[in-house]
Amino acid sequence: MEEPMATAVETGTFGERLTHVANRNNSLLCIGLDPVLDRFQPSVHSDDDLTRAIVAFNAGVIAATSDLVCAYKPNLAFYLAYGRAGVAALEETRRLAPDHIPVILDAKVGDMANTAEAYATAYFDTWGFDAVTVNPYLGEDSLAPFMRRPDRGVIVVCKTSNPGSGDLQDLSTLDGDRQQSLYLTVAERVASWAERWPATLGLVVGATYPEELAAVRRRCPRAPILLPGIGAQGGDLEGSLHAGLDASGAGLLVSASRSVIYAGSSQVGDWTEAVRNAAAGLRDSINAIRGIGA
Amino acid sequence: MEEPMATAVETGTFGERLTHVANRNNSLLCIGLDPVLDRFQPSVHSDDDLTRAIVAFNAGVIAATSDLVCAYKPNLAFYLAYGRAGVAALEETRRLAPDHIPVILDAKVGDMANTAEAYATAYFDTWGFDAVTVNPYLGEDSLAPFMRRPDRGVIVVCKTSNPGSGDLQDLSTLDGDRQQSLYLTVAERVASWAERWPATLGLVVGATYPEELAAVRRRCPRAPILLPGIGAQGGDLEGSLHAGLDASGAGLLVSASRSVIYAGSSQVGDWTEAVRNAAAGLRDSINAIRGIGA
Repeated sequence: MEEPMATAVETGTFGERLTHVANRNNSLLCIGLDPVLDRFQPSVHSDDDLTRAIVAFNAGVIAATSDLVCAYKPNLAFYLAYGRAGVAALEETRRLAPDHIPVILDAKVGDMANTAEAYATAYFDTWGFDAVTVNPYLGEDSLAPFMRRPDRGVIVVCKTSNPGSGDLQDLSTLDGDRQQSLYLTVAERVASWAERWPATLGLVVGATYPEELAAVRRRCPRAPILLPGIGAQGGDLEGSLHAGLDASGAGLLVSASRSVIYAGSSQVGDWTEAVRNAAAGLRDSINAIRGIGA
Repeated sequence: MEEPMATAVETGTFGERLTHVANRNNSLLCIGLDPVLDRFQPSVHSDDDLTRAIVAFNAGVIAATSDLVCAYKPNLAFYLAYGRAGVAALEETRRLAPDHIPVILDAKVGDMANTAEAYATAYFDTWGFDAVTVNPYLGEDSLAPFMRRPDRGVIVVCKTSNPGSGDLQDLSTLDGDRQQSLYLTVAERVASWAERWPATLGLVVGATYPEELAAVRRRCPRAPILLPGIGAQGGDLEGSLHAGLDASGAGLLVSASRSVIYAGSSQVGDWTEAVRNAAAGLRDSINAIRGIGA
């Protein structure tokens, strides 16, 4: 096995680190770092070296927003699309983020036994991410290699924001003697896993389904919930916050990617200023709904 | 986007190419290329360059078995575990396989919208794999970027071989007015997607569950079924073949990895001979059960 890279994981559980940064930056905003070369401002795009172009772009976004977020979330797909050059950029991006800000790898991983162990090695040790998104379809033992890590976060896909998420997630299931939608059974599994495994367990629930989010929150009162679907996907920010905030008025990671990171794409001059303005605007909108001043 | 690599995908659908090679090599054996450096024979392991060591190992396995298999199946996890060096090895491994043998990327991918598009770009265009395994939890639209490709295969995780596969997959679901296990609802979805999408649709069913395999085969009489769980996981080869073969006595990809590729690890001299013997032995055992001579 390759020497593990120097990782930036600080002490404490993932949940504790997340709360710390959310308080420090007064923010529930999680920025998705999903690079698409064609959407970079021409000055960044023009670097012939793919890895360098992606890293420069992410570095610009991070420098402009690191006092405005509670986490960053690169999605694996956008790096693999560029092959080994993209993976090199992902590795460097992990190291770019300030030590105190958790970085979540969005990989929606789900495999089993020694394969799941290899993924845990890749995502937590080789790359040093603080948390990873996972798919529950293969069951508890498939997630064990992630959940047994006391300092990391495991964020379970529950109810996704896409139109077809109901195909399976909304199926009525009989669990013991209770009839309920599959995604709620998943939420109950997560609540139970959270009691038995050392990692911080969280969930993914799309902002396009506020009622479903409220039902998940009732089953997992303390779990961090990653909320994609704001911005480009047209989710309901206000409805989702009312449905998903925990008793302390936090516990959500409101995820935005394209609407923030490409805000300056057509800008002449300093594109990162537009990124900062978009991030600050969204953070403040979230805080206004939470009843917290800027 | 990076220039797509020269891919080795030949003409015809994935299903046609698979049948062609299965007939030509008289084999339903699919070898999993899951490199673990510590398990390589010392002469291969000793190369300091990680990429070169992995590629040399896979090249040895492929050269020793390419007349004995119907497909190869690298699992993404084992490459990502070695970071960018592993991904470079995966890219080279794809190009090592003879043009006529389909190569399936086992990634159990499931994400949505533009993210799923980025994965399809990565796996089918950047890397040129013939087929990919996918996770159905996010629904039909999440798989569309893969299923719309007429020349590729999309192999849907249905009933996995791990002990905890029942956690969700065996839940009783109500689909319309029919009560059945979730994995059977998935099998019916796959049968219906196969009629509406151009790609070849297949399923993953573990060899540890022959009865469940028979039930899936009844719902998907013509789909290729990838059967992991033979070998290291102790699945039931004879029971699974009787349960899973299609009407033509084929339609299965019997997947084996560790039990074949590490057969020569403790060998002095030519380790690939032991790999060849293990592969030939398994192919012949499969054919004996099918009633086909060696």
